[in-house]
Amino acid sequence: MYLISFCTMDCMEEKFFTSTEAAKITQCSRRQLQYWRERKVVVPTVNTTGKGRNVYYSVSDLWALSLMQYLLSMGLSFEVCQSTLDFLRLVEPVLVENPLNYKAKKRFMLWQSGENEGLRCVEFNEEKAITAIQNGQAIIPLWMETLGERLEKKLQVV
Amino acid sequence: MYLISFCTMDCMEEKFFTSTEAAKITQCSRRQLQYWRERKVVVPTVNTTGKGRNVYYSVSDLWALSLMQYLLSMGLSFEVCQSTLDFLRLVEPVLVENPLNYKAKKRFMLWQSGENEGLRCVEFNEEKAITAIQNGQAIIPLWMETLGERLEKKLQVV
Repeated sequence: MYLISFCTMDCMEEKFFTSTEAAKITQCSRRQLQYWRERKVVVPTVNTTGKGRNVYYSVSDLWALSLMQYLLSMGLSFEVCQSTLDFLRLVEPVLVENPLNYKAKKRFMLWQSGENEGLRCVEFNEEKAITAIQNGQAIIPLWMETLGERLEKKLQVV
Repeated sequence: MYLISFCTMDCMEEKFFTSTEAAKITQCSRRQLQYWRERKVVVPTVNTTGKGRNVYYSVSDLWALSLMQYLLSMGLSFEVCQSTLDFLRLVEPVLVENPLNYKAKKRFMLWQSGENEGLRCVEFNEEKAITAIQNGQAIIPLWMETLGERLEKKLQVV
């Protein structure tokens, strides 16, 4: 199934997806989608019609789901994933709203600022990242263009 | 309270600690200790006496608790922490048994081998780590001498 066979990436931003499609595209389970909806992590639009309630995910929602899935797949806890998503929504609202149109190389990293510190999301800085690694401290890069490209690919062939 | 005021680090290896002491030294909660004991992640020695059941943690157990606590504080999930501990017990049994006597610079890292891969524990390699970071992939260094030194410090002043 080619969801966007005759659709440019610009018009993709206005497309909406069902829970089944969203799960397929982002590789999240239906159960995860439901859980995150209840916890207000990623809340889709709900349409009440005569036929019942329909749930629709925007491309921005899919991006948020992909980010959660990516961080979870790395072994990070739910709390860290959620706070990273919240942070990016706060500092990069334009990017989060239009994840496919955003072509600037916006890069962040989860950075362990001190020996006994947890991970903090800060702007990616290669020099700082390498110094951290050389001091035995953790770095988890979060490159927005990579996340956007991944989602774009998944949207092209579902 | 100076637990080892008249004790060298060599004899420390044979010392045992109560749950309360273990929690204090490793900064784990009593609840975590209990949970990990039930899940057989870190199982202390149990002494049944006329006065009841006493639980004792060895220095090796404290090291395992410290490792769990360190990885959890970084935001990693319980599963990743446990599998990392299991891996180190498998490949470095001598180190895990005698964490304070082990002075060799044994270094590992949690390494994201591919774009969609989770973290794997491998030997630390600075060049590989830097390349990973430059490609936007995660690195969480795990240096055994650092973990050992941290525990040693905590044992000196509790």
